Amino acid sequence: MKIIPIKSNKKVELIDITEEIEKMLPPKDGICIIYIPHTTAGIIINEGADPAVKEDILNIYDKIAPINFPYKHLEGNSPGHVKSSLTGPSLILIVEKGKLLLGTWQRVFFAEYDGPRNRKVYIKFIEG
Amino acid sequence: MKIIPIKSNKKVELIDITEEIEKMLPPKDGICIIYIPHTTAGIIINEGADPAVKEDILNIYDKIAPINFPYKHLEGNSPGHVKSSLTGPSLILIVEKGKLLLGTWQRVFFAEYDGPRNRKVYIKFIEG
Amino acid sequence: MKIIPIKSNKKVELIDITEEIEKMLPPKDGICIIYIPHTTAGIIINEGADPAVKEDILNIYDKIAPINFPYKHLEGNSPGHVKSSLTGPSLILIVEKGKLLLGTWQRVFFAEYDGPRNRKVYIKFIEG
Repeated sequence: MKIIPIKSNKKVELIDITEEIEKMLPPKDGICIIYIPHTTAGIIINEGADPAVKEDILNIYDKIAPINFPYKHLEGNSPGHVKSSLTGPSLILIVEKGKLLLGTWQRVFFAEYDGPRNRKVYIKFIEG
Repeated sequence: MKIIPIKSNKKVELIDITEEIEKMLPPKDGICIIYIPHTTAGIIINEGADPAVKEDILNIYDKIAPINFPYKHLEGNSPGHVKSSLTGPSLILIVEKGKLLLGTWQRVFFAEYDGPRNRKVYIKFIEG
Repeated sequence: MKIIPIKSNKKVELIDITEEIEKMLPPKDGICIIYIPHTTAGIIINEGADPAVKEDILNIYDKIAPINFPYKHLEGNSPGHVKSSLTGPSLILIVEKGKLLLGTWQRVFFAEYDGPRNRKVYIKFIEG
């Protein structure tokens, strides 16, 4: 198991970690488990070419879990918890010869929902 | 493959099954697949310390898929189907020496979206 | 790794690919990774018996990511990107003797969010 450290800079942002993940992989075939050990962050795969896509995704997430809502949790980060529960903490990817088998437009993003913070991502490779 | 039986008590609730999962694991390294064989339930990882977080998550889910909406499915449980499709039926976790590699605040919850019911969770461990 | 080709016919639709997946599996125990290499599509498991459930799911998704919203991405398919980010590109299923271990009502759907298009689904089986 390997760890990628992340330093987020905004309250909410998507950080491309595709290359960091691939650096962790051996030159073999198998699967790669990406795991986020946080409750106000997540992992997303989507388009990386046009940064506007990231904005649109995060803006709709803000609409889903708005800042103004009668939340019971009093730390002010309930939108982050909700978004984290929706996008999930783990993802499984197919690896071929040490490269992630992604689609043409796909990039892997660490989703920060309550930054800025120091975060980490766990990477586990299983040959097969 | 092992099975955890669940007895939900409310229409909608998050039930902490972290300990039940760990009881099923051998004292080895690997990955653990959690699978929910239901269409109006799901699996979520989020904060377990403050129960208000669970309430906030479920209240936003009720906003996403409200009871009052022109649903076509006539069994009255369409909100449960929608929530199940969003949070997903499966999750993959990293296991170290028989313990789930969770973050400090993370717990694994069975998400009941159309209870109360008798449910089950499938657990499969793969060494690696 | 095997590939299932998909031909979607509508802008937004759920296409049952359960049988196509099972045709790809060897008669063994293990896990099956389903991966969608697209940024405006996804994978969903839910009820297949009543087609109205699929409609309800897609109608709520349209409410979450409506056509009319101040999107920044100018290709007109931002709702598809958002939906794809929410339902996710990958899924892990348990396999017993070459059959997917699904619940009674569960079917696996390719989720088209920006069709009609030619798409593909990657299937990887790992014995264990």
